Amino acid sequence: MSELLQSYTSGSWFRAPDAGMPLLDAATGEEVARISSTGIDLSAMTDWARNVGGPALRAMTFHERAAALKAMAKELLTHKDEFYAMSARTGATARDSAVDIDGGIGTVFSYASKAARELPNDTLVLDGASEQLGRGGTFRGQHVYTSRPGISVQINAFNFPVWGMLEKLAPAFLAGLPTIVKPGSQTAYLTELVVRRIIESKLLPEGSLQLLCGSPAGLLEELTVQDSVAFTGSAATGARLRQHPSILHGGVELGIEADSLNCSILGTDVTLDDPEFDLFVKGVVTEMTVKAGQKCTAIRRVIVPEPMVGPVIDAVSARLATVRVGNPLSDGVRMGPLASLDQREDVRKAVQTLRASATLVFGDPDVVDVVDGDAETGAFMSPILLHASRGAVEPHEIEAFGPVATVLGYNGVDEAIALAARGSGSLAGSLVTNDATVAREVTLGLAPWHGRILVLNRDDAGESTGHGSPLPVLVHGGPGRAGGGEELGGIRGVLHHMQRSAIQASPDMLTAITGRWTTGSHRNETAVHPFRKSLAELAIGDTIRSAPRTVSLADIEHFADFTGDTFYAHTDEAAATKNPLFGGIVAHGYLVVSLAAGLFVEPNPGPVLANFGVDHLRFLTPVRAGDDIAVALTVKQITPRTSAEYGEVRWDALVTNAAGEAVATYDVLTLVAKTWP
Amino acid sequence: MSELLQSYTSGSWFRAPDAGMPLLDAATGEEVARISSTGIDLSAMTDWARNVGGPALRAMTFHERAAALKAMAKELLTHKDEFYAMSARTGATARDSAVDIDGGIGTVFSYASKAARELPNDTLVLDGASEQLGRGGTFRGQHVYTSRPGISVQINAFNFPVWGMLEKLAPAFLAGLPTIVKPGSQTAYLTELVVRRIIESKLLPEGSLQLLCGSPAGLLEELTVQDSVAFTGSAATGARLRQHPSILHGGVELGIEADSLNCSILGTDVTLDDPEFDLFVKGVVTEMTVKAGQKCTAIRRVIVPEPMVGPVIDAVSARLATVRVGNPLSDGVRMGPLASLDQREDVRKAVQTLRASATLVFGDPDVVDVVDGDAETGAFMSPILLHASRGAVEPHEIEAFGPVATVLGYNGVDEAIALAARGSGSLAGSLVTNDATVAREVTLGLAPWHGRILVLNRDDAGESTGHGSPLPVLVHGGPGRAGGGEELGGIRGVLHHMQRSAIQASPDMLTAITGRWTTGSHRNETAVHPFRKSLAELAIGDTIRSAPRTVSLADIEHFADFTGDTFYAHTDEAAATKNPLFGGIVAHGYLVVSLAAGLFVEPNPGPVLANFGVDHLRFLTPVRAGDDIAVALTVKQITPRTSAEYGEVRWDALVTNAAGEAVATYDVLTLVAKTWP
Repeated sequence: MSELLQSYTSGSWFRAPDAGMPLLDAATGEEVARISSTGIDLSAMTDWARNVGGPALRAMTFHERAAALKAMAKELLTHKDEFYAMSARTGATARDSAVDIDGGIGTVFSYASKAARELPNDTLVLDGASEQLGRGGTFRGQHVYTSRPGISVQINAFNFPVWGMLEKLAPAFLAGLPTIVKPGSQTAYLTELVVRRIIESKLLPEGSLQLLCGSPAGLLEELTVQDSVAFTGSAATGARLRQHPSILHGGVELGIEADSLNCSILGTDVTLDDPEFDLFVKGVVTEMTVKAGQKCTAIRRVIVPEPMVGPVIDAVSARLATVRVGNPLSDGVRMGPLASLDQREDVRKAVQTLRASATLVFGDPDVVDVVDGDAETGAFMSPILLHASRGAVEPHEIEAFGPVATVLGYNGVDEAIALAARGSGSLAGSLVTNDATVAREVTLGLAPWHGRILVLNRDDAGESTGHGSPLPVLVHGGPGRAGGGEELGGIRGVLHHMQRSAIQASPDMLTAITGRWTTGSHRNETAVHPFRKSLAELAIGDTIRSAPRTVSLADIEHFADFTGDTFYAHTDEAAATKNPLFGGIVAHGYLVVSLAAGLFVEPNPGPVLANFGVDHLRFLTPVRAGDDIAVALTVKQITPRTSAEYGEVRWDALVTNAAGEAVATYDVLTLVAKTWP
Repeated sequence: MSELLQSYTSGSWFRAPDAGMPLLDAATGEEVARISSTGIDLSAMTDWARNVGGPALRAMTFHERAAALKAMAKELLTHKDEFYAMSARTGATARDSAVDIDGGIGTVFSYASKAARELPNDTLVLDGASEQLGRGGTFRGQHVYTSRPGISVQINAFNFPVWGMLEKLAPAFLAGLPTIVKPGSQTAYLTELVVRRIIESKLLPEGSLQLLCGSPAGLLEELTVQDSVAFTGSAATGARLRQHPSILHGGVELGIEADSLNCSILGTDVTLDDPEFDLFVKGVVTEMTVKAGQKCTAIRRVIVPEPMVGPVIDAVSARLATVRVGNPLSDGVRMGPLASLDQREDVRKAVQTLRASATLVFGDPDVVDVVDGDAETGAFMSPILLHASRGAVEPHEIEAFGPVATVLGYNGVDEAIALAARGSGSLAGSLVTNDATVAREVTLGLAPWHGRILVLNRDDAGESTGHGSPLPVLVHGGPGRAGGGEELGGIRGVLHHMQRSAIQASPDMLTAITGRWTTGSHRNETAVHPFRKSLAELAIGDTIRSAPRTVSLADIEHFADFTGDTFYAHTDEAAATKNPLFGGIVAHGYLVVSLAAGLFVEPNPGPVLANFGVDHLRFLTPVRAGDDIAVALTVKQITPRTSAEYGEVRWDALVTNAAGEAVATYDVLTLVAKTWP
């Protein structure tokens, strides 16, 4: 008898006391492992996440969490061979395993990198600018995202045992939420192996990752108002989860990614001679055969101009005929088996239903040539292409979760969009066209029905990652049938797990609460010029307030000559007088900020290493010859870098005239050494 | 018999054929109107929204929609007296009516103004920067928000018949969604009057606003995957809606704002002598008595340091004793009746339940002195203050939706946060403190449990809008018991109604699809300098590419002298060599952008009126003495202003050196005349 998979709970590995259910190799039918969650203490598991994992994680800043993820991803890379070997037993070819294993690890790297670049080295995220709520400026509002003191439970599908776990883990971990992973049972042995390597590495804080192998019955009952469930699977199971009392009444948040009836559309402009025709055909075949079509994002509906139906069927069929099906470890095999015999039975039934309104044009659901395998014991199946009759209903409602797609003809762009919409909401759609007008019209028509749309043509084909690949920096999810959820999308995926709140307070209080200097807060003029302070010494609110400087007509004229910026508003009084906004000569905006820098700079070597940028520069009041300007520069935000000897300091710059009016406002971005000298 | 309220459906006013249900004046018990939706054709109503209102609305740009809303709000202002008179019949005092009527109209103005300022004059919204998806730059991703081809149904509570409708209408309308309003029946006569004035004004496109007076039974069955329901009301009704088949299986989106057990916390720092003590007491009394406490955001739990329990009870009670209850039209009346006798009965029952663990310390639920009214026929009730025993459960679970609050004592900041959290998620919380440390600790502890938090002290009290007031620019909603929804929050509230999708394409295709120039797209060098083109003539991608200019050491030295920016990296070779980032003298960033302006500018009077700002300026490669720089300036986005003779043009600026490396990238913001000459 094979090994019983273990769960990782409350700081140790748990083995169920019973024999469990056997999990069979998809290709050979041999028993790979057994699975059972009998006797697991789910209450202790959720308590452990809540009381051990959560607090440990939330004590870390976003940058520290990112560093832990990066170290974990590096560690996983060292175990790739082992993961690939185990992955083959799920029916995955090496190409399939790359999507799952390299794709999963790559997602963690991407999140680690995004978080270090785009999130503050802090534990809360500010959302948008602060809002002035009263005329006097004493009352302001600021939206913030904070970490929920809860748990993220992921309930995954069997098809991506590695990616499915890691793409949910990375954003939740960054958001400060401990995770409980419940893998799809059929392939849980691979998830268990990866979790085991993560736990052994001790790179994540204890309690931030637990694993539940087997039935999750009773788990949702343990969840409360700050917890969330991220589910990937069928729309039917999703609807059942929506009715769970913890979701209906308990305030538990539920995100759903459901399989959807994704489509790929061939543009009206594409002829047989265009490279786009081949790109389209290749895309369809790839999506049908990668993971033997067991992908939430696979192309189920192939929507082509009516006159192209024949050529597309021919070309796709010809290509499918070259796809060798068999043992994923054998040479030349392009498509492995489905995950299980049960899974194949479901797909065959779905094909039968589809045939009510569609003709089989390639493959036989019951017959397949198998390389190094046996279709009796291994879940092998031929790719299946169907051609739907006009007005067919089934292709928009029945999902065959395997290597199956249906060709539908359309007349005109409106019908293409309407057909796509009949999927009632999809994760991913694609359009192959080289016509910008077609691209705009179809894409904007598809957009409300899709989470992601690929527009493919000769220009991006070389670098395109294809129709079916979710990317960590782009949102993954879709409306309606696709579940209505959203995952990934870079930092969007982190914020999904956090609570957005509006804070109303005085500017000084907002500064204290958020750790970022807020407009209207006290500016603390320090005895030492703040450019003489290291990152460790600088404090939010530290300010240098300059003496005034007069901007003369000679300055303006000279600046125009020197830079070549002889725009008439700076050089020609008669013409400038006619300008509706100025009514006379004004100083260049670039002159104002250049002089302001001269006013606030501390010239000698010190901890400030460089000015690397400026944000949100607005010129608010024109500066005329003879005006005095002065500048106040205040520390707004301090972001130490985890991996460097310096960090970023964002300064609020306010240039005013003698009347006290704001002339220009902007943020100055500098790099400042952590220590000095 | 009073008039039967009419519904506005499919372009005309509909009167039910039956007598309907009577709606009584809250103060006098007289019949104000009757209500019935018998016989209304809900299928025709939703079709009308879908086929008439939606397409009309989505043909308008955001700025056009904003202008329509602004005109509507102006129109409503002219009918305020009529609205106030009708509002009194709901039991509202003039102060209450201001919150509902002026608050509602003000929300529309705020949305119109925000949309014109912050949204493009277009029909789609770009979300974030585009992402490079391949090393070669031929494959990029861009998130966009598009309008759903669906309907927004609002199901409102009785307590804010005007604000409740308008705060949901404005963002949905801006998002391109036609609205069907279902007002709370008890006060539907006021909503009907306001909708009637809007329809009469013909300022909104036909079909973009319909009204359903009476039972909405059957309405949700008409909704499909692109539709949404925004519900405000009880948590129990919210949970029932969650189980509707259209929500569970139909892909209809449901947003819930449920009443919650909001708290106000007195900080540990506040003494009897601090102004914050009085602010706290006033806040509690205001929230108890405005709308007779019938507000989702009212303070239900008054959480104070244990030693302050007595003083707070005394001070709140003393203030409550001065509140005159009675006919809202009578002089000196501060608190009107509840909305109905049934409503009062519910509140009395809730008070009875609360008394299981709390003592009545002010008021009697069955006895009240009434000014110009009769507690038999009018739903009058005294304010009720309770003091809960330690460990009480009911105050965190039972909501008395009337002038009722419970005082709870705490020891230490952690217990205050824990008590607040026992409300299981609230719309609004407040903290009164003048201590920045207390403010940060408590606010960040409360944040994951709240949609909005007010921090009140002596500095912001003068301009504070109070604990209970949702503001259009801040999100309104809360986690858990509060429903988990989000409304308002400025443009966030518009985007809630739209679909976010990730588009992957070549840069040129992204430019065509989004209407904004994308990094890597073709730069179209035009024969005419683009500064000579009016807004009408300019096209996305139009480019001026400059000749190179050498930056000499003399230029750098001169710029340092002239501006005063003598930072050592520009002036002292020995010191600059030691700078870890530069390793020698470099040109000032401000010099680079000043010279770039000299390179791209067209000096003569023309359609470009002014440069009003710069965004996202980043210095990427240092410029050293002798380096040649050149600039390409490309039209990125064009935003005509509806109310001016010019519009905004955003230009992509790319400064490169002779090696072709990017020296600086930024957006230049200009105002350009619509026509020229």
